[in-house]
Formats: sequence, structure tokens, C-alpha cells
Amino acid sequence: MEKQALLYEGKAKKLYQTSESELLWVEYKDDATAFNGEKQDVLSGKGLLNNEISSLLFEKLAENGIPSHFEKKLSSTEQLVIKTDIIPLEVVVRNVVAGSLHRRTGIEEGTELHQPIVEFYYKDDALGDPLINHDHIRILQAAVPEQVESMKEKALAVNESLKTHFQSCGLILVDFKLEFGTTADGTLILADEISPDTCRLWDEKTREKFDKDVFRYGLGSLQDGYTEILKRLGGSVHD
Amino acid sequence: MEKQALLYEGKAKKLYQTSESELLWVEYKDDATAFNGEKQDVLSGKGLLNNEISSLLFEKLAENGIPSHFEKKLSSTEQLVIKTDIIPLEVVVRNVVAGSLHRRTGIEEGTELHQPIVEFYYKDDALGDPLINHDHIRILQAAVPEQVESMKEKALAVNESLKTHFQSCGLILVDFKLEFGTTADGTLILADEISPDTCRLWDEKTREKFDKDVFRYGLGSLQDGYTEILKRLGGSVHD
Repeated sequence: MEKQALLYEGKAKKLYQTSESELLWVEYKDDATAFNGEKQDVLSGKGLLNNEISSLLFEKLAENGIPSHFEKKLSSTEQLVIKTDIIPLEVVVRNVVAGSLHRRTGIEEGTELHQPIVEFYYKDDALGDPLINHDHIRILQAAVPEQVESMKEKALAVNESLKTHFQSCGLILVDFKLEFGTTADGTLILADEISPDTCRLWDEKTREKFDKDVFRYGLGSLQDGYTEILKRLGGSVHD
Repeated sequence: MEKQALLYEGKAKKLYQTSESELLWVEYKDDATAFNGEKQDVLSGKGLLNNEISSLLFEKLAENGIPSHFEKKLSSTEQLVIKTDIIPLEVVVRNVVAGSLHRRTGIEEGTELHQPIVEFYYKDDALGDPLINHDHIRILQAAVPEQVESMKEKALAVNESLKTHFQSCGLILVDFKLEFGTTADGTLILADEISPDTCRLWDEKTREKFDKDVFRYGLGSLQDGYTEILKRLGGSVHD
């Protein structure tokens, strides 16, 4: 396998072509951004931590029968994934009220939901990634109804799997964001990453935050939080 | 029928008890508000125009087999309605892109939608009446799923009826907001008002705006716009 031309550089990752047309080489960056890019920093070691955590979580999902674009970890900051056309939707699952759900509904932060909820956001930085409903998805032609249903179903299955896994590590999976893509043959699969950049994770006892909110709200060292998550997942920063 | 104690005063209407426990006396006010109360004015004649237009539209819906809380017009600014517990949701139907749909999706204002879309907003001034999805409605306990489905169905039926009616008057029904309530026996019915305060109405040829956007964006005389709508609907300001 050979790393070839840079295809795309996002806020947190670079994607490179490989010698195989259906595989991409992903490099996790140390850049941290929040509030739609308004807050930025470079945090040494973040790329490594997210790559390690994301690899472990995708492997755990595969064990539980939930496929994703993840093929294998290539190095401490790189992984190999199946190439997909990303659907321009962020699929958010929530188990506990936090962040924008608190601001939108007025329900107190930390309130446990009896059933998880699913939200769709339109991936568009210029529009601020707005919440949208099924009718908006239709008029934006962001996905067809069958894909929307399938994404919701898969997102809830991911939630069941990861919630249990994090619970066994003493962590509460408060909420998380997923992205999906379609492969060359049109199959919808889980893509992007699952990391403390895209999940809220709290200590089950103290409710200490270990995720990107540490960076968003200046609560301490992001690397310490992400390292704690990796440690609890049984991973190590030395590969 | 006798007007009794003031039950509730909203931005645009006052509700009074009557000698019959299941009926309310509604008085349309001349107050105009926009942008969640940030812009305010008193516009003489507005209450009369909205009462006349709302009465005509509720009558038209009844003719087309769509019941509402409307019982009868009492005077030029007053009507009698069935008392309901209002469901704290604004149900918006859109045929053409305008306002927040343009801002949310980036789709150009004036774009005609092939199929109408429906949106639910949570009626809460402090939260700015946010857009919400079905899962939010569930956790807010704003309505049960059967009510949500029924409101959507009824709102689309209202749209079919009113769109055709306005078309015959040379007006484009761009979008509108409905509210629903439950009667003493739990029946869900259309409530509140249907007026240029709650609809966007454009001239079919010139696309001139005759609705509350005239007030929101200082485009001219609100009363002239509302009078034009009433005239086209076959009504008159002299009752």
C-alpha cells in the first residue's frame, strides 16, 4: 500500500489517495477547532490520540457486527479506510442532555433521556451546520428517505454498542456525531471518525468531561482528557 | 353570549371567557411585533383586518371540510371560538422558499418547492421558538406521536385548500404557521388564527409582498398590504 496525492484536507484530518482506487490513507492532525472554526489551536499529540481511539472504536463496532469504512491502523496517526462519497449530514445521537440540545429545548444539562434521540445537521460551514428535518433533507437532496432511515437505524445500533462499551470503562456516552458515506457500489457505510472530537464522554461517577468540551470551554488539558479515554479503552499512547 | 374575564393576552389577541365554558371570545389587537418581540408597533386597523381575513379563511376551510376552533365572527375585531388547550408547537407549511428556510438551507428565496414541506417549532419565546424534530417533541412532551402525525396531515390539507383559494385571488401562498389545540373531549383541532400575520402572501405576477414581512422589513404600509389581501378574498373593511 502506497500513500499518494493529497485528496482533501479537513479541520482534523488529511485524506490521501492510495495505489488502490477504493482505499484512502487518513492522517489525523493535531489541529483543534471549535465553534465553527472560531476557536483554533494546535495540540501536540491530539492526532495520535484520536487515531488510536477511533481505530479501537471502529474495531469494537466491527466485532459487534457493525461495519464501517475502517480497514486498519497504519501508524500512530494514520489509518486505512474504504473510500466513500460522504453524505453531507451529521447524524447526532444523544443519551444525556448537553450542548445545543440544552440550548434548543431548555432541558437541563445532564438530564438522562429515557430513549436516545437522533438529530440530523446539514454539513455546511457557511450555514453553521444547521439542524434540519426530513423534509429539509429531501429538498436539499442530501440523502434519499431510505438512506435517512438507514442512517438513523445504524446510528442507534452504534449507540447501543458504544454506550455499553464505554459503560464498562466507567464512561458515560453523552452524545456523538457520525457521518456516513456510500461506497463505489452504492452501499451506505459508517465513515469519518469516532473520537473525543466527535463524542461527549463523562466520568460515570464525577461527571468530569474528557472530550472536546475541555478545549471548547477551556476546562483543562485536552490531551489529558483524551489520554484518559484511551487508557480506559485499554489502549496506549505508545504504539 | 357574554364576554367575561380576560383569560390571556398574547402579542396579537386577547382571549376572554364567556358564559359558555367551552367557548372563548377573541379580540384581535392592533399591536404588531416581529423578531421575537424586538420590533413593535401599534398599527391602527390591523386587528380588524386580521379578524376579517381569519374569519373568511376559517369559513373557507369549513366549506372544504376542514374544521377549526372558529365558531363565528362577533364584530369587526372579535370572533367566537371553541376553547382548546393549545399544543406548544408552531406547525409551518412552505410552498416557496422564504425567510428562515432560506437562511437555514441556503436555497434561494423564491424557489418553488415541488412538494410542500412541514416544520415544527417549539413555542417558547425565551428559547426563540426553535425548530425541533420529532424526537425533540417527544422529550419535550409537547405532543404525542399520533398528534404530530395528525397535525402534519391536517396542515397539509389546510395548505391544499388555501393554496388553491389564494391562487384564485391572484396570490401565492408562500408559507404559513398553524397552531392546534385539544378540546375538552381531547379532539385535536386547528386553532389560533390564519392571517397575514401568520402567512406569507405574494402577488402572483409581481411577487409584491402583502404580509407581515412588509412590517418586518419596513417595505411600506402593513395596512395597505392586509387591505389588499382582504379585498382579493372578497371581503370588505366595513362590516
